[in-house]
Amino acid sequence: MTPGPTNVPSLVRDAISKPMIHHRTPEFKNIFSELTENLKYVFKTKNDVLILTSSGTGGMEAAVCNFFSSSDKVIVCNNGKFGERFVEICKRYGLDVIELKYELGEAAKPSDIKNNLDSEIKGVFVTQSETSTGICNDIKEIGNIVKKTNALLIVDSISALGSVDMRTDDWGVDVVIAASQKALMGPPGLCFISVSEKAWEAYKKSNLPKYYFDLGKYKKKSQENETPYTPAISLIIGMNESLKIIREVGIDNFLKKHEKISEKLRRGLIEIGFEIFPRSGLKNNGLTVVKSLPGIDSSVIINAVKEHGYVIANGQEELKGKVFRIATMGDVEEKDIDKMLDILKTIVKKFA
Amino acid sequence: MTPGPTNVPSLVRDAISKPMIHHRTPEFKNIFSELTENLKYVFKTKNDVLILTSSGTGGMEAAVCNFFSSSDKVIVCNNGKFGERFVEICKRYGLDVIELKYELGEAAKPSDIKNNLDSEIKGVFVTQSETSTGICNDIKEIGNIVKKTNALLIVDSISALGSVDMRTDDWGVDVVIAASQKALMGPPGLCFISVSEKAWEAYKKSNLPKYYFDLGKYKKKSQENETPYTPAISLIIGMNESLKIIREVGIDNFLKKHEKISEKLRRGLIEIGFEIFPRSGLKNNGLTVVKSLPGIDSSVIINAVKEHGYVIANGQEELKGKVFRIATMGDVEEKDIDKMLDILKTIVKKFA
Repeated sequence: MTPGPTNVPSLVRDAISKPMIHHRTPEFKNIFSELTENLKYVFKTKNDVLILTSSGTGGMEAAVCNFFSSSDKVIVCNNGKFGERFVEICKRYGLDVIELKYELGEAAKPSDIKNNLDSEIKGVFVTQSETSTGICNDIKEIGNIVKKTNALLIVDSISALGSVDMRTDDWGVDVVIAASQKALMGPPGLCFISVSEKAWEAYKKSNLPKYYFDLGKYKKKSQENETPYTPAISLIIGMNESLKIIREVGIDNFLKKHEKISEKLRRGLIEIGFEIFPRSGLKNNGLTVVKSLPGIDSSVIINAVKEHGYVIANGQEELKGKVFRIATMGDVEEKDIDKMLDILKTIVKKFA
Repeated sequence: MTPGPTNVPSLVRDAISKPMIHHRTPEFKNIFSELTENLKYVFKTKNDVLILTSSGTGGMEAAVCNFFSSSDKVIVCNNGKFGERFVEICKRYGLDVIELKYELGEAAKPSDIKNNLDSEIKGVFVTQSETSTGICNDIKEIGNIVKKTNALLIVDSISALGSVDMRTDDWGVDVVIAASQKALMGPPGLCFISVSEKAWEAYKKSNLPKYYFDLGKYKKKSQENETPYTPAISLIIGMNESLKIIREVGIDNFLKKHEKISEKLRRGLIEIGFEIFPRSGLKNNGLTVVKSLPGIDSSVIINAVKEHGYVIANGQEELKGKVFRIATMGDVEEKDIDKMLDILKTIVKKFA
């Protein structure tokens, strides 16, 4: 129950181990087409959704180097490690970054974006679920502000999509980045990126160098259900099985399951005596970040949980030792939550 | 028997379908360390060999944006589609390219490189096996020329490594790029790149923007047997099994097998009446490109072969319809060659 790579259903694992097929065959093109359609369904969008062979970070870089030019002024919301990554990437490409940096555990304030969003701003970057702190930013409200302007709204939904609702079209999100190994229950190695018409217009003007991540080539090739370069074929085949499972359940039912189990987890944790780390933002139905017990390094709790056969994650960087992170994304069931709460209850008693 | 993605041994496919493990665990780190060591063995190098989650093209881009700066003067040998790709990437990053363009089917002339290699040249880019034409460039001889200068030698060995000998250290190749899905018998989605000390010196001076492909970060993380971003875990586990197979056979025995079966294929093809396409260069033990029969589109031959249960590839771009391509890389055995020659003999009789 770590925030990715998550468990991969056996049906998916069976699919990736089938004999290799060539990526220019009708057999593969059918799978690619089905996966693309199901991604659009999960992203809730009519925009293009492109499939990259890379980790989610590759998609974050693609979102910078495809739609902006050197010295473009952009706003980046920094709520932790992954917001920080957007800041770094933008700076590497010479963008002029207005950084809205929040204390760890605090969500981005839409009013801060509004106040900084003058006519010179070309883009606003936001992390939907910040995996390092567990905060969940309100993309709907931010979308309402940005869509009235000429700026693009770019959302890192890598650890959110599939566990937290993302209504790409309704909320006016121009670029959404997701990855295979989180709530979408696939093996790591694939990144998915949606691109609005407004973003394609900006693409035409972008002067930043790019090749492997040049999204125009992916768009062109995806019209023939192909990719410009040999993709991770077995991962795409596996991913297609994951998304078929989600489609069969229905994306809104899938989201409701996450809401239900994460709500149960949060309630249970508070009953046991733990404190949830994020102090603001929406409920994060994919990831719960919890403060450690007073005076106890969180690694002690994590190791004790491990003895019971479950893996949860430590905090990252300055939160290491201070919090632990429990993911409820992907293939996690109510019985896992019950078990986790039982384990944590036992551990708390030991330290009481 | 297409030039990648090649067949993946069942042992490898079994490995990639095991339950997902986390990439920061000792279990995964052991696999990563073993794979890195075995890659160095296959590359015949003591240099760093880094593992990227991307297609080979990502590694080609990394070789450009990590070691050069805008306006750097470089020589690119262009023997076909993949040499052309190096030209494109270098131009995207604003390098000053001296293109040595050869007729399709002609190998690069080392003397051309020598004649253009003045003190201003920062790098020489060569494709070892040009997958579009089947020519195999003489890296040893080119290495002898470049290693006496300050220029870096960058070799795309994506469809060569494992079927054609690559002596990275002996030949003085600074950067070698390989991929999982060719002679190394893995599933597609991983790229491997070796970096010499001379190249790391150039890295320090490079001013080109990069993030996902910033190799310095991969070097640093690989010292802890980690990657900077979530890698394609299942593909790495599978790849490790492939390389264990190669190591058990021995890389030189593995290369000899390729030499033997490709020699048999070439001899057999000529006996039947076919003509080999490349007119110069070394023998390509991984890929044989063959001229179609006079007046017959090569797709007719390819489709006839398919009816016998084997898949071979058409030419690409301007060679489409004019040649067919038979790969002898990876998990191909002598019995496959016998069968292929029998099939082609039958087909030739039909058209005689």
